[in-house]
Amino acid sequence: MSVITIERKVLEKNDAIAQQNRELFARHGVFVINMVSSPGAGKTSILEKTLERIRTSVPIAVIEGDVQTDIDAQRVARYGVPAVQIITRGGCHLEANLVREALVNLPLEGVRVLIIENVGNLVCPSNYDLGEALKVVVASTTEGDDKPLKYPAMFRNASVLIINKIDLVPYLNSNLATLRANALQINPALKVFETSCTSGAGIDAWCNWLTAQAQATSKTQ
Amino acid sequence: MSVITIERKVLEKNDAIAQQNRELFARHGVFVINMVSSPGAGKTSILEKTLERIRTSVPIAVIEGDVQTDIDAQRVARYGVPAVQIITRGGCHLEANLVREALVNLPLEGVRVLIIENVGNLVCPSNYDLGEALKVVVASTTEGDDKPLKYPAMFRNASVLIINKIDLVPYLNSNLATLRANALQINPALKVFETSCTSGAGIDAWCNWLTAQAQATSKTQ
Repeated sequence: MSVITIERKVLEKNDAIAQQNRELFARHGVFVINMVSSPGAGKTSILEKTLERIRTSVPIAVIEGDVQTDIDAQRVARYGVPAVQIITRGGCHLEANLVREALVNLPLEGVRVLIIENVGNLVCPSNYDLGEALKVVVASTTEGDDKPLKYPAMFRNASVLIINKIDLVPYLNSNLATLRANALQINPALKVFETSCTSGAGIDAWCNWLTAQAQATSKTQ
Repeated sequence: MSVITIERKVLEKNDAIAQQNRELFARHGVFVINMVSSPGAGKTSILEKTLERIRTSVPIAVIEGDVQTDIDAQRVARYGVPAVQIITRGGCHLEANLVREALVNLPLEGVRVLIIENVGNLVCPSNYDLGEALKVVVASTTEGDDKPLKYPAMFRNASVLIINKIDLVPYLNSNLATLRANALQINPALKVFETSCTSGAGIDAWCNWLTAQAQATSKTQ
């Protein structure tokens, strides 16, 4: 069927550019994560907390992906780290060539961690490799504990799961243990963090892990 | 550019089938809504509360759209209303032809309201007409008050906004008035309801409006 063929060609072309991005990141010894989630799960808030904690010890750069507006890039810019906004103008996910274009304005010399915040969408970004070391999926407790079962591709393709907004669990019908178990049923290899950007719970564990990954990547250069 | 041409052809083909669906709905005097939102905003919970309240006075049928699993159709089936599950197997939105196929197993005789619950995705479903009378976008307070600005197409193409999970507002940093104002900035014609499926707040107002729309549609047949 022609549509599938076209889709496959689009993905193949994307993967080739993603591989070039990956080689560029490797040359600079940069650890790159692709943050994905539903809209409003807390990607930008986790990013802000991460910058607060480790930007002085680990040089971080950011690429913000949004359908419209540079609200998120403005939030990140307050921390004084290099940041580039990609506005997809209706596009539902980032692609490797958009990241490559963003890198023209984002020199990687001295950068140890690059965080790419994808468009808020739990479906489409799962298929698009950007050249990252790994995908980090953020799931908010408020979305309900069945989301890994209902949107399995994103949880299957991610290496890390951050369960965010755990401070709200007492007020919800959804169950944290069930959410975790459903995610691990889809992908038993997921590394799981549980966080709250309001209380600060779990942010240190996440930042320590990210710092360790950056150090390991830098050493293998 | 060829990709845009293909996309336009896909949309034109979709719109032609949507128009056929619309004519079918008109012949049966059915009021049809297309419910859209981010994953976990509460579409299915609002649907359950709606069925609880009005299924005995207003004959309702349901089409459930999901990427994977029939969890939502199972939830709806408990209310004893006609329901069909569409599983898109990775597809990020419903299309008019999927609805047309679902209607083969969903006789419309005597039905006054058809609720189509779309895939949880705040980007892609906005472009696809299914033949509905109008789109109802559900926004959860937990997603933050900036989402209408960041995902404007969905709010622009919807006629009704349900702001859900208002019971959680005391525990959030986001502001209900700001969320509402941002939505109305994108689309001043939006009819807005504020609901909580936990406390039941606002559900009656929504159900009364839906019942009135169904009666008006039935009369104009």
